[in-house]
Amino acid sequence: MSLDRILNAESVAVVGASRTETKRGYQAIKTLIDEKFEGRIYAVNPKEKNVLGLPCYPSVSDIDGPVDLALITTPAKTITDVLKDCGRKGVAGAVIIAGGFRELGEEGRKVEENLIRSAREFNVRLIGPNTSGMINLEKNLNLVGLHDVPRGEIALISQSGNMALSLFTEARLKSHLGFSYYVGVGNEVDIRFHEYLEFFKNDPKTRAVVFYVEGMRDGRRFLQEAYRTTLRKPIILLKGGRSSTGKLSAGSHTGALAGISEVSRTAFKRSGIIVVERTDALFPVAESLCNLPPIKNNKIAILADGGGHATLAADILTDLGLTIPELGTNTQEKLRKILPFTASVRNPVDVAGGTDADPTLFAECSRIILKDPNVGGLLMVGLFGGYAIRFAESLSLKEEDAAHQLGKMVKKRNKPIVVHSLYSSVKPHALELLRYYRIPVYDSLDVACICISALNDRGSYLNEYHAKVNFVFDWRSREKASAKKIIDAAIRQNRRFLLEHEAKRIFQHHGAPVTNDQLAATADEAVEIASKMGGGVSLKIVSPDILHKSDAGGVRLYLNTSAEVRQGFAEIIRNAEKYKPGADIRGVLVSPMAEPGLEVIIGTKIDDQFGPVIMFGLGGIMVEVLKDVAFRVLPISPRSAGSMIEDIRSAPLLKGIRGKPPCDRKIIRKLLLLCSEIIEAYPEIAEMDLNPIIVYEQGARIVDARIILKEELNYGKT
Amino acid sequence: MSLDRILNAESVAVVGASRTETKRGYQAIKTLIDEKFEGRIYAVNPKEKNVLGLPCYPSVSDIDGPVDLALITTPAKTITDVLKDCGRKGVAGAVIIAGGFRELGEEGRKVEENLIRSAREFNVRLIGPNTSGMINLEKNLNLVGLHDVPRGEIALISQSGNMALSLFTEARLKSHLGFSYYVGVGNEVDIRFHEYLEFFKNDPKTRAVVFYVEGMRDGRRFLQEAYRTTLRKPIILLKGGRSSTGKLSAGSHTGALAGISEVSRTAFKRSGIIVVERTDALFPVAESLCNLPPIKNNKIAILADGGGHATLAADILTDLGLTIPELGTNTQEKLRKILPFTASVRNPVDVAGGTDADPTLFAECSRIILKDPNVGGLLMVGLFGGYAIRFAESLSLKEEDAAHQLGKMVKKRNKPIVVHSLYSSVKPHALELLRYYRIPVYDSLDVACICISALNDRGSYLNEYHAKVNFVFDWRSREKASAKKIIDAAIRQNRRFLLEHEAKRIFQHHGAPVTNDQLAATADEAVEIASKMGGGVSLKIVSPDILHKSDAGGVRLYLNTSAEVRQGFAEIIRNAEKYKPGADIRGVLVSPMAEPGLEVIIGTKIDDQFGPVIMFGLGGIMVEVLKDVAFRVLPISPRSAGSMIEDIRSAPLLKGIRGKPPCDRKIIRKLLLLCSEIIEAYPEIAEMDLNPIIVYEQGARIVDARIILKEELNYGKT
Repeated sequence: MSLDRILNAESVAVVGASRTETKRGYQAIKTLIDEKFEGRIYAVNPKEKNVLGLPCYPSVSDIDGPVDLALITTPAKTITDVLKDCGRKGVAGAVIIAGGFRELGEEGRKVEENLIRSAREFNVRLIGPNTSGMINLEKNLNLVGLHDVPRGEIALISQSGNMALSLFTEARLKSHLGFSYYVGVGNEVDIRFHEYLEFFKNDPKTRAVVFYVEGMRDGRRFLQEAYRTTLRKPIILLKGGRSSTGKLSAGSHTGALAGISEVSRTAFKRSGIIVVERTDALFPVAESLCNLPPIKNNKIAILADGGGHATLAADILTDLGLTIPELGTNTQEKLRKILPFTASVRNPVDVAGGTDADPTLFAECSRIILKDPNVGGLLMVGLFGGYAIRFAESLSLKEEDAAHQLGKMVKKRNKPIVVHSLYSSVKPHALELLRYYRIPVYDSLDVACICISALNDRGSYLNEYHAKVNFVFDWRSREKASAKKIIDAAIRQNRRFLLEHEAKRIFQHHGAPVTNDQLAATADEAVEIASKMGGGVSLKIVSPDILHKSDAGGVRLYLNTSAEVRQGFAEIIRNAEKYKPGADIRGVLVSPMAEPGLEVIIGTKIDDQFGPVIMFGLGGIMVEVLKDVAFRVLPISPRSAGSMIEDIRSAPLLKGIRGKPPCDRKIIRKLLLLCSEIIEAYPEIAEMDLNPIIVYEQGARIVDARIILKEELNYGKT
Repeated sequence: MSLDRILNAESVAVVGASRTETKRGYQAIKTLIDEKFEGRIYAVNPKEKNVLGLPCYPSVSDIDGPVDLALITTPAKTITDVLKDCGRKGVAGAVIIAGGFRELGEEGRKVEENLIRSAREFNVRLIGPNTSGMINLEKNLNLVGLHDVPRGEIALISQSGNMALSLFTEARLKSHLGFSYYVGVGNEVDIRFHEYLEFFKNDPKTRAVVFYVEGMRDGRRFLQEAYRTTLRKPIILLKGGRSSTGKLSAGSHTGALAGISEVSRTAFKRSGIIVVERTDALFPVAESLCNLPPIKNNKIAILADGGGHATLAADILTDLGLTIPELGTNTQEKLRKILPFTASVRNPVDVAGGTDADPTLFAECSRIILKDPNVGGLLMVGLFGGYAIRFAESLSLKEEDAAHQLGKMVKKRNKPIVVHSLYSSVKPHALELLRYYRIPVYDSLDVACICISALNDRGSYLNEYHAKVNFVFDWRSREKASAKKIIDAAIRQNRRFLLEHEAKRIFQHHGAPVTNDQLAATADEAVEIASKMGGGVSLKIVSPDILHKSDAGGVRLYLNTSAEVRQGFAEIIRNAEKYKPGADIRGVLVSPMAEPGLEVIIGTKIDDQFGPVIMFGLGGIMVEVLKDVAFRVLPISPRSAGSMIEDIRSAPLLKGIRGKPPCDRKIIRKLLLLCSEIIEAYPEIAEMDLNPIIVYEQGARIVDARIILKEELNYGKT
């Protein structure tokens, strides 16, 4: 269902309308009237006759005209009845202000579940609860009670009312930009992030979408929707609640998967979202992306009127991964002609006092620089805008002249200019002119650099975009009957995990190279199997009651003779019986010892927000001590699998160092894709671990495999 | 010599005095007059009779009164003569504005060397060249030509004029703080950073010292001086020119030692300097450290009027390494009593609308929170200062009341409060009051958090301070005659490196465990030595003409039989002769193969800015692929050696993982200290490499050692 009738509502019922000025039910109506909401306002309160000149209806269903949206300002316990009433009336959606749900713990969670049920039952979509409200600035549909939100082209979707207030304030004080919509998502019990996004993707008034997110109910759908949106318009996202205290404060108790913030950061970026790491860069980045063309080639020119700023700008941009190429000789020559001999023209360009008497030189320099085909965007740093203040009042007109020229240049060259100015907060006319031309100006050099970096991220995302690469969540991977049987058998035995040889068999059925194990029931059988295998073997206990085989003394490695095998078998059985008396021992798994090679690990888990995710890393210390792993949301494409291998810090080890030959990265990629396929084909699987996989110059072998099944028996694909 | 006569000069000669308004020689005199410099101003120009009403002297020596300081505004080529004249007059110091020295390359470097010679010869100390000048704000001695630098308690030492201008502007626009002195260091050819620092350490008007540094001529002396200063007053430092483009832009062509920026960061921090990573945090951090007591226990409380800011503040502070402890039950109870039931009182404290009608609650909450002995400092985030703007004009008086209370609280509890406010740039009266009480207010949440973190860094440095720990650069390590002989012999042979066995012998003389190698001249000798050693041996070519033994095919490992040794010997000699025909072959080094253990690497180099530095890391991939190393400036203390071992990411490997026993960290520490001792005792040594050292559960063995001697033969300690 589209959210059109809700976000573009033409009639609003305020439930809990009040004559008390401090109450939300008063303020909401007052704001709608003051802001000149274009549609109909209905006050609802059985105890009042009228509020602010409007007649009061005892209930929503008593209203005589159609009602698109209800703003419910009454407490949590009343809401079910109100929703029932709304449903009867055919109201499309309700904004629920009240708190007291999930954020208060277990009890609140139950109340929240009731709320969701009611909404479904009565067919009313919900914004919130625990939200500051919603604003449609075009229609003056302001359900938040804030009066001075600037109008513009940014849609803001936030899980925090005061973050929204921050951005409104910043926009008003420091930019010429404003908002098309604001939605306070609150606890996101019904309408999800991705549904809002779908709406704003199609909304012509919205040029950029900004998110402040603490926790997301359906990250996968969001990624899909983001993936579709970012081709059309930029999405900028700030994530709160990364730290454990922050999480607690955000009231989110999502189970913490190690590295999960890494999962979300990677996933967001891969769907083209610009993830902002600093709170004070959120609005500036949105402003820059809304206003300026993206940077196409990662190559930035810096134009400065002093060495220190030029040096620091180069440092910061380099840290952000951008390059500051030497300008073309032609460009340098042209700059030389108009600048003093002490000027640097290589890049950064330092005018060395050349602009002191004539700041229009900034425009001339910029024109020359932007013409250089090797330059993708320009960062201007220093005093521009303050020449009249610092040197002579008469320079203000020259600065304004420069600003007009700069503004027109961006359009002509389709390359962005971002300006850092010490005088930004003084708002001299020249800087206001730049803003009029949609050139953003910041007094923080760091923030200006981050904006350049965001413009570049957007440019390179659009350059590298490949249709169908990432967030198509259905590769149509099919289960294999033979493998399915193994899972079904375990479930019939009420097991929540597969035994090692069962897990390996699943991989084998899908064509993966596993060690060629065999189950031995007796020592004699073990000896016979081992002698047929030839070479060294390992023995491992097989028991549904023993998940951690090593802890139980259930593993013996490098057994070379029949005597060793026989003794090992006996020891393992003895240890297992001691470890867990009465354990259901299915036998001992005999495996040929794999040749030495490079150990890697592949694992999958289910993330609260993003569903199945996959992890890759190098076995041993690289994962255990250095936490050097790459994560992706599943399923993954071949390209994505390749990039996982490149992403780990220890990637050079795979390519062969110190004269060692490179190992078979193709087979690692295949195995990653295979895991992706298996997770998709068998929704029963919760987690898998291939640890270790030994990789050779050619080929690889899965030495140990673990598969955990989901707790619930409802395995239907969603 | 003290800089007192220079930085507190009572008489200034302006050389190059001019009647042309755009010239520096005019502006300088104009500024001194306008700013009401307390001392005497002398104009010097042989071509003018008078400038701005002052009589013009043909030369400095013609001036009739005493002259403390000369401001030289004439071009580079004139300066030698001017300095000669200054010397004749007994002028203490000169500020040289002209550029055109080292920053222009090789030619400029020669001009600069001449300049230095002249200064020494004529006994005039130099500020600059290539500087924007110097300001003593108390005396109105303003040699920069900026009119509105705010007076205050920060001494600013900068290698960039526009960074200084940035900070002046920021101070004026956003704080109540100002400067005691400004020095533009320029090319730092004579007066060094550490000399300025020594002066400001003792200056009673200066409460904090701020540096912007691109390159330093004598980092060791600076560290020593900083170490003495930071106990008395904070030093805040921003380093520019980290990236290669930044370096180029900074005109610094310091040879790049890998990880050198890590060296400087660590060294600065260990001497108690607060190193700022973001340009826009430089002034705020200086302001906070100047105004507020340090945080003693790493424990921060957050007081917010909304969830989003609280969550983000917790995230940022956690990322910065601070803890946000749960408040005491007593504290929580008291907060509960005055806040709405929906408020969070755990920490972060979220007033949940409790302050909407009465912002004095902020003061009450703060009082309760700061009383909690578990809280070291308070970060207040959100709307404070904007309640009158956002809710009702009448609240402004309540906000002011709160501001007065908060201001007094900081003094009483001696715990800092830093405030983030959306309304900072609007400058409401309540926020100006906070600034009056020296409580800083920022509109960037990130910057406010960085300030809290800096206050905590300063607190923990003062807590953990141990006299004599670090920057005493003379441990009185003595050379040993037996070892010195080896070095002398190599120098006599005109060698710039020691042979492997010579290098090892040096370590052995200092008590280090090296493999018990012996030099064999013939295959027979090699076989005999090997058989005496028993077990496997390695053979390595020994030749002053072959530095890279492996490349020359000059290494054979794991030789177990006499036949293998004999054959290995022959191959090595043959390979060496092929690799470099006519090479001076001294023999073949026979070494027992060391037992396997954990490989570590220790190396030393000479850094351009900090002199000898030491590097430690784990052998193999950890250093080569993952660049996982720790650096320190030498010499190091036992404590410092210990912290190097802890600093590497792979430190857990040394402690034993996966059931392996820990390896002998004491011996690593000893070896680090030994290297420190050797570098101090033998100034002839430029670089050393112990690679690998094999470390066992008990003890270690140096398997290969390399020592490079300095190029020049002037080895005197400086």
